[in-house]
Amino acid sequence: MIGQKSGTLTVETPGRGMTDITGEITRWLQDVGFEEGILTVFIQHSSASLTIQENADPDVQYDLDDFLGRVVPDTPSLYRHTAEGADDMPAHIRSALTDVSLSIPVLDGRMRLGTWQGVYVFEHRTSPHRRKLALHVMGTFGGL
Amino acid sequence: MIGQKSGTLTVETPGRGMTDITGEITRWLQDVGFEEGILTVFIQHSSASLTIQENADPDVQYDLDDFLGRVVPDTPSLYRHTAEGADDMPAHIRSALTDVSLSIPVLDGRMRLGTWQGVYVFEHRTSPHRRKLALHVMGTFGGL
Amino acid sequence: MIGQKSGTLTVETPGRGMTDITGEITRWLQDVGFEEGILTVFIQHSSASLTIQENADPDVQYDLDDFLGRVVPDTPSLYRHTAEGADDMPAHIRSALTDVSLSIPVLDGRMRLGTWQGVYVFEHRTSPHRRKLALHVMGTFGGL
Repeated sequence: MIGQKSGTLTVETPGRGMTDITGEITRWLQDVGFEEGILTVFIQHSSASLTIQENADPDVQYDLDDFLGRVVPDTPSLYRHTAEGADDMPAHIRSALTDVSLSIPVLDGRMRLGTWQGVYVFEHRTSPHRRKLALHVMGTFGGL
Repeated sequence: MIGQKSGTLTVETPGRGMTDITGEITRWLQDVGFEEGILTVFIQHSSASLTIQENADPDVQYDLDDFLGRVVPDTPSLYRHTAEGADDMPAHIRSALTDVSLSIPVLDGRMRLGTWQGVYVFEHRTSPHRRKLALHVMGTFGGL
Repeated sequence: MIGQKSGTLTVETPGRGMTDITGEITRWLQDVGFEEGILTVFIQHSSASLTIQENADPDVQYDLDDFLGRVVPDTPSLYRHTAEGADDMPAHIRSALTDVSLSIPVLDGRMRLGTWQGVYVFEHRTSPHRRKLALHVMGTFGGL
């Protein structure tokens, strides 16, 4: 019997960089008793985004952030949209280059991630922000 | 009771740039009476794409398009695939960097977008095109 | 009656570049008798990714790979994470710029792809790799 559940997740970011939310999502899946189906994670912002990346060596995250800094520099003369700060328009571009939503298959109550994959909120503004995520699962639940 | 509905949407673009389709998708959700679940928007082309971006300041859209023009220039000598025009291969690359499909949670009949998020078709060819989108919803419908 | 099915697909890649998996996915859809709904393809790696691109002219694939090579060069001095080879960190960045999961609507047993769209595993490491994909369909199945 296929059912669904909608939820939310709030993530406090320390400013530009990646915050691992794999554990929080895993706990939410357990809380709602989800067994098999599709998890959708959607970020309700356009200056922060989502990504799935290697979770073993933190340098991967720093290198990814550095790369985006080189390709999308915080240089106001490059942009029209500068009223919200030198980092705001670059944040929108970084978001467009990464993911606003992730669709992740779930089996036996766990996301079917690879051994080295983690799920991250990618903050693109330089200052800390509170970011809201919409969660949704559809499939089978334990006990049903 | 979980059900589903498949649909289509045709979007006429004026050439390179972003066309807001938030209103048209919202109307389709109302037409089919969708209440809660997952909406999938899929573009059936590889020289135009989809993105979710800030909808408040139109300069964000121009800056995003400018950025892609700098990183993926319409310079034929950079590409093998030039028979369809100087803007065609850049259009494929721009598409690969943005989204071909979007999975958006829906609750109370509305997409769970952030306050400043809009859904856009991103045309990457310089001339106007007619773009076809596949729509799909799965979840609960009003009256069921 | 809405049901679901989880599966896997293993793809041997010849090293950096794109491998068309449209045919293998189409056969899997036929094997499980899927009729209408959503297919999710998820790659369980962060140094290879997924993309949907033009399938007519192979030069599009070479140009896309060349573009990524220019923007994300295999230059160790640019990265901290170099222990796994000069191509590893660029592979993570290339993955972040493309797709880890694809949500594709299915109707009448077929993916609703455009005429010129193919589904690809995009290998970003220079040497051959065995890549594992998680598949999932939810919707209606033939005979149900």
